[in-house]
Amino acid sequence: MYDFRFYNPVRIHFGKDALTHLPEELASVGRKILLVYGGGSIKASGLYDRVTAMLQDAGKEVFELSGVMPNPRTEKVYEGINLCKQNDIEFILAVGGGSVIDCSKAIAVGAKTERDFWQAFFVNWEEAKDAIPLGTILTLPATGSEMDRSSVITNWTTGEKNGYDSDLTYPMFSILDPTLTYTLPRNQIVNGVADTLSHIWELYFSEPDTESVTDALAEALMRSVISATRTALKDPTDYVARANIMWASTFALCGMLNNGKKTDWASHNIEHPLSAVFDVAHGAGLAVVHPNYMQYFCGYAPERYARYAVQVWGVDPAGKSSLEVAHEGIRCTREFFNEIGAPATLTDLGIPESAIEDLAARTDLSCWAYKEMTREDVKAILRMAL
Amino acid sequence: MYDFRFYNPVRIHFGKDALTHLPEELASVGRKILLVYGGGSIKASGLYDRVTAMLQDAGKEVFELSGVMPNPRTEKVYEGINLCKQNDIEFILAVGGGSVIDCSKAIAVGAKTERDFWQAFFVNWEEAKDAIPLGTILTLPATGSEMDRSSVITNWTTGEKNGYDSDLTYPMFSILDPTLTYTLPRNQIVNGVADTLSHIWELYFSEPDTESVTDALAEALMRSVISATRTALKDPTDYVARANIMWASTFALCGMLNNGKKTDWASHNIEHPLSAVFDVAHGAGLAVVHPNYMQYFCGYAPERYARYAVQVWGVDPAGKSSLEVAHEGIRCTREFFNEIGAPATLTDLGIPESAIEDLAARTDLSCWAYKEMTREDVKAILRMAL
Repeated sequence: MYDFRFYNPVRIHFGKDALTHLPEELASVGRKILLVYGGGSIKASGLYDRVTAMLQDAGKEVFELSGVMPNPRTEKVYEGINLCKQNDIEFILAVGGGSVIDCSKAIAVGAKTERDFWQAFFVNWEEAKDAIPLGTILTLPATGSEMDRSSVITNWTTGEKNGYDSDLTYPMFSILDPTLTYTLPRNQIVNGVADTLSHIWELYFSEPDTESVTDALAEALMRSVISATRTALKDPTDYVARANIMWASTFALCGMLNNGKKTDWASHNIEHPLSAVFDVAHGAGLAVVHPNYMQYFCGYAPERYARYAVQVWGVDPAGKSSLEVAHEGIRCTREFFNEIGAPATLTDLGIPESAIEDLAARTDLSCWAYKEMTREDVKAILRMAL
Repeated sequence: MYDFRFYNPVRIHFGKDALTHLPEELASVGRKILLVYGGGSIKASGLYDRVTAMLQDAGKEVFELSGVMPNPRTEKVYEGINLCKQNDIEFILAVGGGSVIDCSKAIAVGAKTERDFWQAFFVNWEEAKDAIPLGTILTLPATGSEMDRSSVITNWTTGEKNGYDSDLTYPMFSILDPTLTYTLPRNQIVNGVADTLSHIWELYFSEPDTESVTDALAEALMRSVISATRTALKDPTDYVARANIMWASTFALCGMLNNGKKTDWASHNIEHPLSAVFDVAHGAGLAVVHPNYMQYFCGYAPERYARYAVQVWGVDPAGKSSLEVAHEGIRCTREFFNEIGAPATLTDLGIPESAIEDLAARTDLSCWAYKEMTREDVKAILRMAL
């Protein structure tokens, strides 16, 4: 177990009545609020009206940034930064999924510097000195951004999708009401689950592989996600299943599953150019990339992948080599993704073979788990995914 | 799953080099420090010298409160409060186990009021308005106090052992170095493990009993604790086992296992008078009380206890009723406690049958899980424990 630091100050309000805690949170923040959201779904669901009424009752002056897209882009961040600077925004309230929250985090640090936010933070990784505080109301469980310090932004001009971390971008609070996810389109649930599982894998499949509390928690979480997804897809209003998916996706990236682990993130890095160039949903990209990444690299950690097969999928290891058991576990993973209707190939994502060279060239190779990843490895993995 | 709030701002530094983070933490706290510790063990181990050298290098003025005993008492808290008030203490550094940390938390809130700390907080449960910030260096994994907001203090005059919670008593940081636990006496490890398991049971054995992420995490944690304890007792310097025990005991009470659960705490409440009157170690008392509590009440939630038996102890449920499986799980629990040398009876603790009436009379009956607990129930459970 590696030495670790754990720190996560986000206040979570979780449950059917979570939104009723918004007024108490608003009581301690400034008057001028930037409300950030995506398309029309929060208006259609009535959430927009409930939230704006609470903001009004709290005496807040509200400015709006709407139209945040999946794979949120630099242009939208600049728009938000300008709004904040022009109106002396004191607090950002993000209502939506990971894209809306990530965009809000980038605005939060970008609005407090005279530097270009992209260059300073997402390219040069400078330490942010100040940020506008933010809170979130989550509508789409997937990215874990509601309880982490990370933000991922896409620069459409350069074709880059980069991340940034800062303790200043932990949300002050996050409101998680599983009933808000009842009306999500099926593909968004599926992409969210693929994202959640991928996050757990990025942490679980990395050294050290000794027996650890962290790994045991990761396995428990994977089993919960898989079981709850099957239930939720059958009955979209099963509260317990929805609550389990939502809390699992949040827990997966709250830092607890990093503790003591090297962590990987190579599959995320392979996926980022897919989103940056072809604008595919992040979770859909991961559903295609990650099982092939596993297949390609599992030979370097057969015992760990075999453990995954046994603990998560109940594979019987009797009379089989670790590698055989590992392959069975990866087959179970693919079968689960097929069962829930996740995409399986680059073709499913509308990405042609001819793009592989360019996608591999754009892949950040700095992260890997059991064996250093080369550009040739990335190409091979993407070819497996055709 | 019940609605829940989760909030835990404690910064954890965990690992072999965790103590090297003390100077960076000290940089942001006041100059006048109260160093709180127990007996001579931190002097014998050299930890006292390392910590005081770091305090000196950081330019701190150090005051000391030593001799904090197991089941920390009101007298020691008053002594600490006086030291804080007389010397304008700005920060409390607790070096020890749960007793030292709990005592420090009580001092932290008590020093910031003119009221009597015991009456105001531990009897009337008034909301603390201010507290001296504190940090901890943990030497004994058990109570979880290093990452929670709770404190338990014994009033030897009244024979009460009461608790108090406040967001103001979350440690600012906690330093957890598993190698500091290598030299612990065996019975302290065993008592700590009993305390840790009991904490998990207090949360796990309570409604709702639907499939939940929280329960899955609890089961994973129990299996980890049991496995790591067996290893650590065989080889006291097995780092991974020590690290797993330490992190599991901290995680057990960080709030993650409360999420969505009613929680119980009746076994803790039955144990408290045992400590308050007979000064038995808290973990030892729980090792005696909790399995009997399970046995006595499992009939009110046989499926939950059967699930525990299957998931934690690998009991084969085939052809058995839930209650039969439940009883097997409780038998496994008792056998594990016997195996590691935990006390099993009131006699082991030196408590005579004649004390039962008085102990039951002192038990706080306000907490329970599946069935309201009466004083007769407490007596029956204590009689089972003879």
